[in-house]
Amino acid sequence: MKRVSIKDVAKEAGVSVATVSYVINNTPNQSISDETSLRIRKAVTKLNYIPNLNARSLASRKTNLIGVVIPQTEPGKEFMFSNPFYGDLLSSIEYTARQHSYHLLLSGPEPNQSYINIARNRSVDGIIIVGAYPTKGLDELRQLDIPVVLVDTYVKDPVYHTVGIDDRLGGKMATAYLIEKGHSKIAFVSGQIEEQGVMQKRFQGYRDALEDAGIPFHQDFVYLGNISFEYAQATADEMLRRGRIETAAFASADILGMGLIKGLRRQGFHVPEDLSIVGFDDVSLAQMADPSLTTVRQDISAKGKTAVQFILDAVSGNIEKQEKILPIHIVERESVKNL
Amino acid sequence: MKRVSIKDVAKEAGVSVATVSYVINNTPNQSISDETSLRIRKAVTKLNYIPNLNARSLASRKTNLIGVVIPQTEPGKEFMFSNPFYGDLLSSIEYTARQHSYHLLLSGPEPNQSYINIARNRSVDGIIIVGAYPTKGLDELRQLDIPVVLVDTYVKDPVYHTVGIDDRLGGKMATAYLIEKGHSKIAFVSGQIEEQGVMQKRFQGYRDALEDAGIPFHQDFVYLGNISFEYAQATADEMLRRGRIETAAFASADILGMGLIKGLRRQGFHVPEDLSIVGFDDVSLAQMADPSLTTVRQDISAKGKTAVQFILDAVSGNIEKQEKILPIHIVERESVKNL
Repeated sequence: MKRVSIKDVAKEAGVSVATVSYVINNTPNQSISDETSLRIRKAVTKLNYIPNLNARSLASRKTNLIGVVIPQTEPGKEFMFSNPFYGDLLSSIEYTARQHSYHLLLSGPEPNQSYINIARNRSVDGIIIVGAYPTKGLDELRQLDIPVVLVDTYVKDPVYHTVGIDDRLGGKMATAYLIEKGHSKIAFVSGQIEEQGVMQKRFQGYRDALEDAGIPFHQDFVYLGNISFEYAQATADEMLRRGRIETAAFASADILGMGLIKGLRRQGFHVPEDLSIVGFDDVSLAQMADPSLTTVRQDISAKGKTAVQFILDAVSGNIEKQEKILPIHIVERESVKNL
Repeated sequence: MKRVSIKDVAKEAGVSVATVSYVINNTPNQSISDETSLRIRKAVTKLNYIPNLNARSLASRKTNLIGVVIPQTEPGKEFMFSNPFYGDLLSSIEYTARQHSYHLLLSGPEPNQSYINIARNRSVDGIIIVGAYPTKGLDELRQLDIPVVLVDTYVKDPVYHTVGIDDRLGGKMATAYLIEKGHSKIAFVSGQIEEQGVMQKRFQGYRDALEDAGIPFHQDFVYLGNISFEYAQATADEMLRRGRIETAAFASADILGMGLIKGLRRQGFHVPEDLSIVGFDDVSLAQMADPSLTTVRQDISAKGKTAVQFILDAVSGNIEKQEKILPIHIVERESVKNL
């Protein structure tokens, strides 16, 4: 079956293609009679004509498409969702977008790729960038006149909307919680620390809490690799090699806490008996861990929802810059014991 | 900064917009001199003009966009990725698409939504539908002249490409493996069984294996809910209520196996000592479970890659229908003991 075109509609209604276009796109200030308008709408219904949104977007500049950019900070990494945080966040973004008849254009550019071509070429109505570090790519985006929401970024920016949490406070909360439970030899397990990145803030919070409690910082208690289950599993081995001095660990992402639990168990050690662990994020997996993970909970669902809402607000004419810092709190589960 | 338009390029090169369009889109059979063509390409470079792909798609009908449809079989379900299989699959699709400069248009239509408007309105080059049951929506897609790949479907179709596994064989392998280890009281834990759906096939395989071994089928050993960690956890309680007769369970998705492990542990029982479990899929989580999950492994990464490849093949002119059944095998880990 051949696709019904705007020409078919024009022919059926006995009007020009331009007239059909005006009516379909609700273009104002056109002197088209109600009768003509009705005839066109009847033709649209009769022929089951569906406007091509790509064509339409050129006229109305609204595509009902939100770009979601999840930069792949580790080049060539195959699994965008190896940190389940991204899967949970994308779920929430997709669900909120769907409720508003929006679709998502998903891309995971590698570090050397710029965002701007993606946004420009696709004519998205807005763009959500997750975990961007200050980059040239981000500055380039300014050339486009579309709303941009930065999720989990510490880029200081006068224009872009931002949604995030206070990661430094979170790191402090996690570490202070362990100190409160009697621990003073506390490991910090994390991915690489990037300048102005989320992990850097969590690390600063870890140091804040140690300092507040008068506990000296030991470089030996710091384990930096990548945010994956496998790395955390290997970290458990590394802890043993270094003498297993720590009684607790702050894992800066839940997936790292889960890997630690598994890695320790393979060596015959148990959580929390041999090592207490506090995670970060409260991904849906955290409850599935065994023991279930005590963690710094952020509302990932609210984060995704807010990001989409900021785009929708901007598209519907709100020109004010919006910023949201979502609350965090400790969720006590089974992975920490009193020393 | 104002966006550079095709008009600016035409002005710079001293030619008409149509001429620029012909050159940019490599439209054949146009008598444009090499010199003019060169002048236009120089103007494009000088002005840093980036063609609007939406506009371009109207002419060349190539958008470098692949629609990925993950039907939300449970209405209103917020988390597309509550079964981590989808996150793993999407990761692989995204990675493969990225390697070929394609982007993904992600949508999770609810059961009452049709796919066709999504595909038609967005002018995608092709569409990948995951886990579709025979529906009217699928038939409607025939009206569009774009390649469609059905992943994990048992819809018999003369046109659409398909990628899948032999789910019935997989169910049989899982169950036969447990029988081989001495079990005969084997639970089947699953989401709802839909006609011609993946879970129905796995269930048939479960019954095949029982029948082959001369073990009578017990309706009491069948637990049907939804494919979530929470449901599986509750299933552990239900097993106890029914008297805990089973010595093993075939969990038709790994996430169910993980929920069972946790649910049993909460009741003071252990896997595999008190219940042996075989999962299905080998999602990346399966290794993270504790005990790690013995499961029917399918190559999720190859599944996503193949689906994208079928679209690319079709876009580049291959008109043959392609079908691929990927191999599966049992991965032995720690969740099964000999009875």
